[in-house]
Amino acid sequence: DSQTSPEADIPLPPPTAPPTQVLDPDKKTPDNWLPRDPRLIRLTGAHPLNVEAPLSDLYNEGFLTSPELFYVRNHGHVPRVRDEDIPDWEFTVEGMVEHPLKLTMRDLLEQYDQHTYPITLVCAGNRRKEQNVVRKTKGFSWGAAGVSTALFTGVVMADLLKKAKPKRGARYVCMEGADKLPNGYYGTSVKLNWVMDPNRGMMLAHMMNGEMLRPDHGKPLRAVIPGQIGGRSVKWLKRIIITNEPSDNWYHIYDNRVLPTSVSPEESANNPAWWVDERYAIYDLSTNSAIAYPAHEEQLELVGAPEKYRAKGYAYGGGGRRVTRVEVSLDKGKTWRLAKIDYAEDRYREAGPRQLCGGTLDMEWRESSFCWCFWNIDIAVSELAETRDMFVRAMDESMNIQPRDMYWSVLGMMNNPWYRVTISRENDYLRFEHPTQPALMPGGWMERVKKAGGNLSNGYWGEKIGGEEAPEP
Amino acid sequence: DSQTSPEADIPLPPPTAPPTQVLDPDKKTPDNWLPRDPRLIRLTGAHPLNVEAPLSDLYNEGFLTSPELFYVRNHGHVPRVRDEDIPDWEFTVEGMVEHPLKLTMRDLLEQYDQHTYPITLVCAGNRRKEQNVVRKTKGFSWGAAGVSTALFTGVVMADLLKKAKPKRGARYVCMEGADKLPNGYYGTSVKLNWVMDPNRGMMLAHMMNGEMLRPDHGKPLRAVIPGQIGGRSVKWLKRIIITNEPSDNWYHIYDNRVLPTSVSPEESANNPAWWVDERYAIYDLSTNSAIAYPAHEEQLELVGAPEKYRAKGYAYGGGGRRVTRVEVSLDKGKTWRLAKIDYAEDRYREAGPRQLCGGTLDMEWRESSFCWCFWNIDIAVSELAETRDMFVRAMDESMNIQPRDMYWSVLGMMNNPWYRVTISRENDYLRFEHPTQPALMPGGWMERVKKAGGNLSNGYWGEKIGGEEAPEP
Repeated sequence: DSQTSPEADIPLPPPTAPPTQVLDPDKKTPDNWLPRDPRLIRLTGAHPLNVEAPLSDLYNEGFLTSPELFYVRNHGHVPRVRDEDIPDWEFTVEGMVEHPLKLTMRDLLEQYDQHTYPITLVCAGNRRKEQNVVRKTKGFSWGAAGVSTALFTGVVMADLLKKAKPKRGARYVCMEGADKLPNGYYGTSVKLNWVMDPNRGMMLAHMMNGEMLRPDHGKPLRAVIPGQIGGRSVKWLKRIIITNEPSDNWYHIYDNRVLPTSVSPEESANNPAWWVDERYAIYDLSTNSAIAYPAHEEQLELVGAPEKYRAKGYAYGGGGRRVTRVEVSLDKGKTWRLAKIDYAEDRYREAGPRQLCGGTLDMEWRESSFCWCFWNIDIAVSELAETRDMFVRAMDESMNIQPRDMYWSVLGMMNNPWYRVTISRENDYLRFEHPTQPALMPGGWMERVKKAGGNLSNGYWGEKIGGEEAPEP
Repeated sequence: DSQTSPEADIPLPPPTAPPTQVLDPDKKTPDNWLPRDPRLIRLTGAHPLNVEAPLSDLYNEGFLTSPELFYVRNHGHVPRVRDEDIPDWEFTVEGMVEHPLKLTMRDLLEQYDQHTYPITLVCAGNRRKEQNVVRKTKGFSWGAAGVSTALFTGVVMADLLKKAKPKRGARYVCMEGADKLPNGYYGTSVKLNWVMDPNRGMMLAHMMNGEMLRPDHGKPLRAVIPGQIGGRSVKWLKRIIITNEPSDNWYHIYDNRVLPTSVSPEESANNPAWWVDERYAIYDLSTNSAIAYPAHEEQLELVGAPEKYRAKGYAYGGGGRRVTRVEVSLDKGKTWRLAKIDYAEDRYREAGPRQLCGGTLDMEWRESSFCWCFWNIDIAVSELAETRDMFVRAMDESMNIQPRDMYWSVLGMMNNPWYRVTISRENDYLRFEHPTQPALMPGGWMERVKKAGGNLSNGYWGEKIGGEEAPEP
């Protein structure tokens, strides 16, 4: 678990071992200069790098994730920036502003207050593999570890914009990175309104867990948009453009949307209107949770087992909304029991203003919650032995609850139904299975149920009911 | 439907006919001086007044609801205020402020800017009857018409608080009404943070649809807390108290909470700790929708029917979050089709700044959505004839979607599962049934299914599946 600061009970980053070796899969790619952690699971082959840690490794690091296990979503090759060039890294604030700015990293460090906040980032595709098992989406197969937390240090984005002075009529903040891609530089936008709201905590970060950003995480400068999907947190940031319309960047239009479930891949390809309807663009994360333990393929010996088993995992809300309850069911959702929640983020809030990682940590005044929390619950082993599955669901402070049903959509995004782990008794031990394994890794109860002809969308996880055929749902 | 202003396409209040007669049920109550509309359905007997309009009447009035059909949630008798005493109605801003204020209505009208906004209020108990059919809660039985919309005119609450200057450490805005009840005056609180946020639009209102508030709606002064449950919009407002803790008013503690579903009535009575856990207090509304047409017990003649039937209803989001899609299913949630949405609120936004009902209407700058929207969808009558039920669900801009499953809790609050209307063919017509009827009114498919022994919590609306017993859920 995370270290704790001696003078206050705040979580500090876990031990880190920056990778030193360029891995074989990277050697034939444009990233062939970049050492990476071999534990990372590659979701899109060798290149570009899209990775998550094994769920147990991620959970075991505790509240804060080391940069080497922090999930990565790259669209192309990583811009290579030499350390000696960082002070001269230029970026702009332009568009509908009174005073366009051209700044270097040196300016940013010298002229602006530095702040440090713990922030959880989550890929909109987290848990997408489950959707892909039901029906192939256009997206690749994240498991449940497309989520990570770090202490980010940098400048509050509103401080820059106040200097630039947005003009009347300005409504959006577009951002563009240095990663040149087939359809232009990566870019997207958020609402200006949100950027100016101190409770939303949007920032430009240059450090992560007290060290300079690593190349995969946006070195030397990135946006960090708390409470929203990772796709809005533009890395290798070069341009901030204030506009009266949402970004027209290709990646803003054609990614990070939840089209209506009735829109088929064909329909979405034939009718471009679906893609420019801003109602379907994703900003806030949705309420979500997963079980870390029991782990996939974990075995629990029944002979000599302790009386209780401690199940545990993570949960997060969207838009700064706090997770207010996490519930676990052992009877397919008929009854639920309340898990304990550990909101490590609160310990920073309670610690009072202080310097941390080169920035001011001051969260007393902020009431929003931008980090994941961990939950746990002790369950009698005898109960686990008598049931066939275990579910978790979270609810946020606005009473938004994870649903039983998956919302399938063409891009496969924001998957957040109840997280289910199956339990089977094999001789004198219990065996646990998660829904899926990331990428092309086989395993998980969903594949098994699908192969057996179960309809995964029947509201009963594809199970046949009462020994009969699955219902016509 | 609503009238439209000649100079701009904004909805104006529907025709109103203020009731002139004291009704029989009121004659033996402390409200025996107060004329009311006989169409209102009384949910708690004669007194105190807790009423909703028949759902069809409510929907037929259009976007804005007349004061006489606007739902009412009273905890006791209505404070009686003579018109000539209104200018001298006093209220205070006190507690953790630099400059405590004692104001009269006259001061409020003379010293502060007046604003007009369309705002939908919703009782946290809307649709509670459905929960009560599953298992009796402590709350009375609202149907699906515990929701109404009006143009409210008054003062932005933040303007008052800026004058009073909250002290450092202040975090909550407590409010207290003039309605003396068995457990003290009605009172509750919201976060100071929210009150100061112009996007949240919290106000003190003295007019509704261009006329003075009527007694049941808080005459002469009430709070209006957009996007949150009606219980926070204190009527007959007398005191605003700035504090560092949430309200300790009895009604704040013991009402408007969603305790965990595992907490039984007995447990909640025996363990007071459940009631003071602020995590379970309700603020934001949750995403919800209902079908207005087909109406309950509506009959559709198949002989000579038009090819299409237009189904329609309402939807709303919470916390200013916009409803971004409404979907209808004719196959028990297996597939969904997209309904059309009419967001009448946008027409005020687009109209530009203007005077309306004695206040400035200026919504161009505001991106939050605080009103219900109406949805409709044309369905082939032949399809309706072939299915047994019809569902609607809404999703908000944060991708919070109404779930299949009801969240039952001891107070019965925030009920928002998919809204289901059943369809049965009887000779040459189709008959439609809503889930319930409000109060003690019999009718609705839920009662019928329960009487037949169906388990309403089985994820299939208590239906037996494939001709067999309902599954062990």
